[in-house]
Amino acid sequence: MLIVMQPNANEEKINKVIDFIKQKGFDAHVSKGENHTVIGAVGRKIIDKRDIELLDGVKEVIRISSPYKLVSRVFKNEDTIIEVKGVKFGGGNIGMIAGPCTIENYEQMEETAKRLKESGVKILRGGAFKPRTSPYAFQGLGEEGLKIIRKVADKYDMAVTSEVMEVSQIPLFEKYVDILQIGARNMQNFNLLKSLGEIRKPVLLKRGLSATIDELLMSAEYILAGGNREVILCERGIRTFEHITRNTLDLSAIPVVQKISHLPIIVDPSHSTGLRDKVSPMSKAAIAAGADGLIIEVHNNPDTALCDGAQSLRNEEYSQLHTELKEIAKVLHKNLN
Amino acid sequence: MLIVMQPNANEEKINKVIDFIKQKGFDAHVSKGENHTVIGAVGRKIIDKRDIELLDGVKEVIRISSPYKLVSRVFKNEDTIIEVKGVKFGGGNIGMIAGPCTIENYEQMEETAKRLKESGVKILRGGAFKPRTSPYAFQGLGEEGLKIIRKVADKYDMAVTSEVMEVSQIPLFEKYVDILQIGARNMQNFNLLKSLGEIRKPVLLKRGLSATIDELLMSAEYILAGGNREVILCERGIRTFEHITRNTLDLSAIPVVQKISHLPIIVDPSHSTGLRDKVSPMSKAAIAAGADGLIIEVHNNPDTALCDGAQSLRNEEYSQLHTELKEIAKVLHKNLN
Amino acid sequence: MLIVMQPNANEEKINKVIDFIKQKGFDAHVSKGENHTVIGAVGRKIIDKRDIELLDGVKEVIRISSPYKLVSRVFKNEDTIIEVKGVKFGGGNIGMIAGPCTIENYEQMEETAKRLKESGVKILRGGAFKPRTSPYAFQGLGEEGLKIIRKVADKYDMAVTSEVMEVSQIPLFEKYVDILQIGARNMQNFNLLKSLGEIRKPVLLKRGLSATIDELLMSAEYILAGGNREVILCERGIRTFEHITRNTLDLSAIPVVQKISHLPIIVDPSHSTGLRDKVSPMSKAAIAAGADGLIIEVHNNPDTALCDGAQSLRNEEYSQLHTELKEIAKVLHKNLN
Amino acid sequence: MLIVMQPNANEEKINKVIDFIKQKGFDAHVSKGENHTVIGAVGRKIIDKRDIELLDGVKEVIRISSPYKLVSRVFKNEDTIIEVKGVKFGGGNIGMIAGPCTIENYEQMEETAKRLKESGVKILRGGAFKPRTSPYAFQGLGEEGLKIIRKVADKYDMAVTSEVMEVSQIPLFEKYVDILQIGARNMQNFNLLKSLGEIRKPVLLKRGLSATIDELLMSAEYILAGGNREVILCERGIRTFEHITRNTLDLSAIPVVQKISHLPIIVDPSHSTGLRDKVSPMSKAAIAAGADGLIIEVHNNPDTALCDGAQSLRNEEYSQLHTELKEIAKVLHKNLN
Repeated sequence: MLIVMQPNANEEKINKVIDFIKQKGFDAHVSKGENHTVIGAVGRKIIDKRDIELLDGVKEVIRISSPYKLVSRVFKNEDTIIEVKGVKFGGGNIGMIAGPCTIENYEQMEETAKRLKESGVKILRGGAFKPRTSPYAFQGLGEEGLKIIRKVADKYDMAVTSEVMEVSQIPLFEKYVDILQIGARNMQNFNLLKSLGEIRKPVLLKRGLSATIDELLMSAEYILAGGNREVILCERGIRTFEHITRNTLDLSAIPVVQKISHLPIIVDPSHSTGLRDKVSPMSKAAIAAGADGLIIEVHNNPDTALCDGAQSLRNEEYSQLHTELKEIAKVLHKNLN
Repeated sequence: MLIVMQPNANEEKINKVIDFIKQKGFDAHVSKGENHTVIGAVGRKIIDKRDIELLDGVKEVIRISSPYKLVSRVFKNEDTIIEVKGVKFGGGNIGMIAGPCTIENYEQMEETAKRLKESGVKILRGGAFKPRTSPYAFQGLGEEGLKIIRKVADKYDMAVTSEVMEVSQIPLFEKYVDILQIGARNMQNFNLLKSLGEIRKPVLLKRGLSATIDELLMSAEYILAGGNREVILCERGIRTFEHITRNTLDLSAIPVVQKISHLPIIVDPSHSTGLRDKVSPMSKAAIAAGADGLIIEVHNNPDTALCDGAQSLRNEEYSQLHTELKEIAKVLHKNLN
Repeated sequence: MLIVMQPNANEEKINKVIDFIKQKGFDAHVSKGENHTVIGAVGRKIIDKRDIELLDGVKEVIRISSPYKLVSRVFKNEDTIIEVKGVKFGGGNIGMIAGPCTIENYEQMEETAKRLKESGVKILRGGAFKPRTSPYAFQGLGEEGLKIIRKVADKYDMAVTSEVMEVSQIPLFEKYVDILQIGARNMQNFNLLKSLGEIRKPVLLKRGLSATIDELLMSAEYILAGGNREVILCERGIRTFEHITRNTLDLSAIPVVQKISHLPIIVDPSHSTGLRDKVSPMSKAAIAAGADGLIIEVHNNPDTALCDGAQSLRNEEYSQLHTELKEIAKVLHKNLN
Repeated sequence: MLIVMQPNANEEKINKVIDFIKQKGFDAHVSKGENHTVIGAVGRKIIDKRDIELLDGVKEVIRISSPYKLVSRVFKNEDTIIEVKGVKFGGGNIGMIAGPCTIENYEQMEETAKRLKESGVKILRGGAFKPRTSPYAFQGLGEEGLKIIRKVADKYDMAVTSEVMEVSQIPLFEKYVDILQIGARNMQNFNLLKSLGEIRKPVLLKRGLSATIDELLMSAEYILAGGNREVILCERGIRTFEHITRNTLDLSAIPVVQKISHLPIIVDPSHSTGLRDKVSPMSKAAIAAGADGLIIEVHNNPDTALCDGAQSLRNEEYSQLHTELKEIAKVLHKNLN
């Protein structure tokens, strides 16, 4: 931590700051510049930097050690590759996940899964418990939904991912699901993150609507700190003043995360744009930007979907997109699976 | 719901839209303007408006019925007044809540509570379970903390509010706490909201960091829909590009909410600014803008606070602020208690 | 314009609204729904919709005619293709613009231009008048800079684009420059936009830091309304709470603009990310998302650049990127030139 | 400037950085911490910190000298008080400015001014050149408007403020106007700022829609650096995702600016909220937060206003608000004039 003093801070003020940080368990290294004296506080203690900023004569306090450890490339330099049903995420591999927003019934899942499998998709998505803004909207089929998606996935030899919303639901998800998804609204549900640190299945962690990249990585840190090293990060759009798209997809998060962290990062082009005709261009853009995978909403009949049909691709649209994505992956010398 | 057609939409396209909405259970009222044909879809069904927007020839779909019902002044016009330990929120009454960010030990709580009581505060705040961005930061004393705050509050005949983070913690909070607080990160933890709808204690619901006012009201609707009519809303700053303050306190949310909803709305000037010397000016501003109360962090010795000491007022600072707030309340002909 | 009345608005209130809009020169079409009466105001007058919203009993006023006309696909459906020095923007063509942030001296421009020409670039960029946040920063070479870039461009048979900051500079730019660039900070400098409507050279209009897509299109409308139909739009990142990248590049603006407007839209990956190692991934992503071109900062020796060297590609980096972009364009069946 | 090296940066990398900054004209002070070596770069040169961040082994570069000088309290500690027609802004004085959004005709200005004068207002506002998002909207009366407002102000012995949009308009404004207003969209029109540095009339500088407080101060720095020391800053709302209010009024900017800068800061509650019924609460809040003044839109007949009538107070509403503001000012021991 570096403490920059005001240009006019006298010896007395400087000494008070030094005393303060020593008392908090830090060593102090003083260096005097032309305008500012800078005090380096060296130590491993955790301290709220604002406590120092409020001392007399202090201009600014700068934290220099990263808040995250296990997720960072300083801790582990090589890419983490997460493999589910032979599909790899990370390390030059692009993993594809597709399926409807919500599990509605067996026929819907069966028909969608069949077509996705033909396109080459091996991981099926579908919501059983739905986070809905309105208490009056359809809230999902619950365990019944999980049973359906598991049954369909088994029929086509696919893996399953679905969103878990509550600590008490985890045992249910461990039973039916291969990748546990954390939605944007739960990215900082710390109790849930801690509990997911204790299981041994991969977690797909979505970035919150107004979360910084640093905060996304800190939430992943919670899971890794608990002992579960398999986290797939997911960019799904952030909230800005632009209102034509539902959210603003921040694709630069891909190269930013890949520089800082060894964890794979995938993109959800469906929820971020909220509009079907924007899904294909943004999927291609995500792959071109270096994404380690995609999670895309596909519905066998979007017009009758109970939820988010407007952002779901039709089966044939997905099939064509999958082919184009493979070509772009080839240009980048990457393996789309 | 109003469906505005493109200027060049022909009869065939218009008829297709009419058929679509009828099939979804709506009546259709067509009116032709100079440039646009507008179709009114009348009915009580819930439909994703984007499903219609994707139909050929549709320019825009506009929802005209409010998504919230029980929280709105259309449902209940007179102000909801929530009373705890004789302190009233709403209907011209300003309720004050104060206390440290985190419960650290008995002495800290005892000393703070004593001084707050002298200033006239009757509701004590303090965190027992703390949502922390880093898994390595202090996470609170847990039930032990709740026991301490309850004991201290009882000694000074005060009420208690503290943040609940998880469905499974609710019974514990019902035992020790008078007002259950929902933090910004849990504003859309819908399972938690549903469970709070089933209890019979007031809930203090904080606005999420990137939540719109509409979404805050929808989250309150979850609680009211469950049967609990006692919700106090809380503006605590939203996330913007400005970085000097921790968040941007949106005080215009006060008159906006008060026009739409009958629920009281209070302000947290401590978390929003994150800086002690900004707490007093923003507290006065909140009262002047018409807030129904404040929740302020106060610590008997902020320099040693385990959490957020930098934004906590000292006891004597709070005491002076309380006096000034009373004077501003008087100018507005309101009762500060 | 549609005026939605409150559920409880009586005949008297409805009639007052009708009188008000008739008096403002509109026809009124009333239609009664289950909950709401809706009044359609038909006419060509311009009115501030909030004036109606303040009338008693009015719930909401919705504008249904688009604010822009000439830029929209309703006015002109086929893509506008803008051609400069044989380079086409729009209609399946991808135009490339490259060069340093700032014109520093002849040698710098000469060396950079030579290498760019070898890569296939035919339009050279370089700033002569620089908008700088600080009055103490280097403000550009002015006319001397324009002379240098013109001379170098002529030597290599290239076209020139540079940023104009002021109405009084336009004649100078008409003399030296082929495409006049409007920076993000001037997107709503309406006097400048009007003046650019009167010239007959293409204008490259950058999106403002906090401009919505609608506002970008309205600013283009100013230029088209003045008679200049050659506007190239440019997405260059918007301001959000994320701070690792300088701005958040909103690539979904590409398909959004292309659906609404016939004008070409290109992307600036250099200013938006502000970091050299993010420029290549975001360039590829932009092309994959369907961009009609790119404007990229390239410097022969970024370490000595007077401005924004940190986000400038080296000559050899650009050369490699150009090759990769051609491959991605081929996958999309588009022509990169 | 502080350069923080990566934990694993070896001597060679450290020496390369030292060589680099010395070559750029800085002295280097090295200090080694437990994890990080920190290099202090001391000197007065201007350098883009990202140039250093791109060097091998560098973790982060931190600028410690403030970018602004003349506007800061380090340069001048006592409050700048700006006086116009006996009305003072700053130093415990609250200055009031009021009038219509747009100058429409003599009668409108005359009637409004008369009533405002009765309330105690001595500075009249009114737009002659209007920045409008649409090229088809009313653009103001131009010089004719300035003549009208001057004539009316002289009749009632009032001062005048109006918005200047272009360098070429400055002589006109010097003739008719006492305070030159810079609108939010021109906050970073650097040519205009430079030209205003050369005149000797006070400038009212509005914060841009997405400008940080640092940027607002840097724009003021441009004017002060040019020699004009009379700048009144104005908070007028920033752009966020919240859409019920037109912008989000950032009242915490008041105490933030007042701590950093000696310049007075006032608030525009009319443009920020965009809704008449929110103007009074936000005006009171601004004064309570410590604002040095207000600029409020008032119209003698808002229903017929050519522009922004919906956010304009009626004469009698303003009169009542003025009285209430005086009472709040009294509580704060400040002088409202």
